[in-house]
Amino acid sequence: MTFHDMWAELLPVGRDSASGGYRRFAWTEADADCRAWFAAQAEGRGLRLETDRNGNQWAWLGDPAAGDAVVTGSHLDSVPDGGAFDGPLGVVSAFAALDELRGRGARFTRPLGIVNFGDEEGARFGLACVGSRLTAGLLTREQAHRLTDGDGITLPRAMEAAGHDPDALGPDPERLARIGAFVELHIEQGRALDLSGDRVGIASAIWPHGRWRFDFAGEANHAGTTRPTDRRDPMLPYAETVLAARREAELAGAVATFGKIAVEPNGVNAIPSLVRGWLDSRATDQAGLDAVVAGVEKAARAYADAHGVDLDVVRESFTPVVEFDHALRGELARILGRDAGLRVPVLDTGAGHDAGILSGRVPTAMLFVRNPTGVSHSPAESATEDDCAAGVLALADVLEGLACT
Amino acid sequence: MTFHDMWAELLPVGRDSASGGYRRFAWTEADADCRAWFAAQAEGRGLRLETDRNGNQWAWLGDPAAGDAVVTGSHLDSVPDGGAFDGPLGVVSAFAALDELRGRGARFTRPLGIVNFGDEEGARFGLACVGSRLTAGLLTREQAHRLTDGDGITLPRAMEAAGHDPDALGPDPERLARIGAFVELHIEQGRALDLSGDRVGIASAIWPHGRWRFDFAGEANHAGTTRPTDRRDPMLPYAETVLAARREAELAGAVATFGKIAVEPNGVNAIPSLVRGWLDSRATDQAGLDAVVAGVEKAARAYADAHGVDLDVVRESFTPVVEFDHALRGELARILGRDAGLRVPVLDTGAGHDAGILSGRVPTAMLFVRNPTGVSHSPAESATEDDCAAGVLALADVLEGLACT
Repeated sequence: MTFHDMWAELLPVGRDSASGGYRRFAWTEADADCRAWFAAQAEGRGLRLETDRNGNQWAWLGDPAAGDAVVTGSHLDSVPDGGAFDGPLGVVSAFAALDELRGRGARFTRPLGIVNFGDEEGARFGLACVGSRLTAGLLTREQAHRLTDGDGITLPRAMEAAGHDPDALGPDPERLARIGAFVELHIEQGRALDLSGDRVGIASAIWPHGRWRFDFAGEANHAGTTRPTDRRDPMLPYAETVLAARREAELAGAVATFGKIAVEPNGVNAIPSLVRGWLDSRATDQAGLDAVVAGVEKAARAYADAHGVDLDVVRESFTPVVEFDHALRGELARILGRDAGLRVPVLDTGAGHDAGILSGRVPTAMLFVRNPTGVSHSPAESATEDDCAAGVLALADVLEGLACT
Repeated sequence: MTFHDMWAELLPVGRDSASGGYRRFAWTEADADCRAWFAAQAEGRGLRLETDRNGNQWAWLGDPAAGDAVVTGSHLDSVPDGGAFDGPLGVVSAFAALDELRGRGARFTRPLGIVNFGDEEGARFGLACVGSRLTAGLLTREQAHRLTDGDGITLPRAMEAAGHDPDALGPDPERLARIGAFVELHIEQGRALDLSGDRVGIASAIWPHGRWRFDFAGEANHAGTTRPTDRRDPMLPYAETVLAARREAELAGAVATFGKIAVEPNGVNAIPSLVRGWLDSRATDQAGLDAVVAGVEKAARAYADAHGVDLDVVRESFTPVVEFDHALRGELARILGRDAGLRVPVLDTGAGHDAGILSGRVPTAMLFVRNPTGVSHSPAESATEDDCAAGVLALADVLEGLACT
């Protein structure tokens, strides 16, 4: 099955007809359809399929027990109304690269694995990279069991409903010990390759990033009758904090975004009792990130105090800076640059990935494919067919260089 | 049944155990329970119960066909997590005032009606005073049939499910023609009586008020990878508009509130594609309200333009200034002031009421009962037992003066 045919098969799965975006959330029907698609691709190529204790899918050529395996792949789930490329491009390209290498008559000297990590986006349970975090021992079973979706359904209940045993969740060091290199291909989530005019790039690092919840608690009251001076309206310090986040980020060359909000009681004629806003912030280094978040929190406290509103700030998740393995990056640059004659820029990124999670356990690298608008996490996300084909060839070259004679 | 016993019976109906607030929304089970309570009170007093074509309940002493009826009452539904007094105080006080007059041996020379207007708060279908608007001919059946709740259930479907015929909705001029005076007692939604030190006041006017929906449409994108200069983030102009509304309101001595918001896709790591905020604004006069809303909209457009965000502003509802009937107000002031020896301040209010809707069709007045904190549309809304008792006596005096020999 060609890249084009694989792409066409996946395209309708979990797509919302109104928005045109994807809603492939962990352990839903759309997720099950993606998993069935992955299994069929593995079977069609004679690969051995495994689903590990954390719900990640692996398709093997050769015996991973031999060790020093080369693994590629990404994820198939999506953010709410996400695009078609974020995740699936890496999985489809992995199968297509294997087909390319078989066409070249390549002989594998190391086991090759293709992986589909579960619940990368964290769209349903609020924590990103659940499958790889569990496997790497960065999330405990107990923590995972406490994750709950917006409808109050816990992760273990959702897994059970999907036919997966939640009691099996946990670290998987033996599996990771067999992997000698992990290379994840991903659509770029920015415009660096578009600006430099290159189809493919190599990742250098992932910015440190995290999520902070800001709870502004005021006093519900009648919007028509309460004098401004008698109000404790939490929407006002929330609004000022949104603007402070933008200012702090621009000062630091970082990003800081309030994209999610929950308001109580959320009535047109009621001053809110609670405005809960989530800050997502990322910066090139830890000191920069600390400065942004401290600046936003300081401003939020001052605004909250000025309006008689209580403020509680909770860090919900955090991932330190990731520097991808220098030896493996050098290997990729050599294969693509010297052997294949490509110019391959080296980029950092603000986006988290399973590759970032695994990088502390396994030599890890990433390839980025050009995104002409830089748009991501949106139905408007796109890459050209030519650039996708260049990505497949680059990945095939890398796999051939690493795993074949 | 005493005021105290009636109050205790109503208190648990539709109360949310977590918030302590009320969720008595139109045509729900809690609403049906309130209606059953009203019917039982009417029956217990030998009053004739009618439910009109628009779902309003009427309990009659004497034959309304005789004309020139005196009607009192209010509503039993609530805003989300509303308080116990807004609405129910007027209905319970109406029954208690009748009991008081019977205790005094009063002889009625005019028919007396007690009314429970349906769907006053508009909490479920987004439009306030649906029952009285329909009756007064200010809302057509076709408009009412298009109202839809947050779950996509239309008003006619909800009415049918509650056993009421939605095809019967429409104006009811014959019913209104029989009413000579309508007096609604209501808890004050502000602190004027608390500041003046009086238990009961008379309403002079309802400020003009309305609801405007501000749709800020930007571009969904990845919160971690999109440079600030490449963003079209609608949360930023929304935040600036919230602050502009506060500034404009303070300048004009008015109120302007953003208390309800809907964000798409509302993901922590996604720049929103859409931020929809609802503005509730009210002012002492039309010119003041126009100035506030024009100022907010002008600021919103400038902010939206600066961020590359599209803005659409829709006026969802509007109620012009209401001046209550001067003759009836004078009558109330005479009865309470000269005859009962009370000092009764005259207040205007920013809150809409069924009395405001009816005032164009029927001579209408309102009594307010002191609210020591001014808090309303909140579980913290309160009035003391003594002030409630003073309200019942004042209403009884008014009804006696208007309807008894």
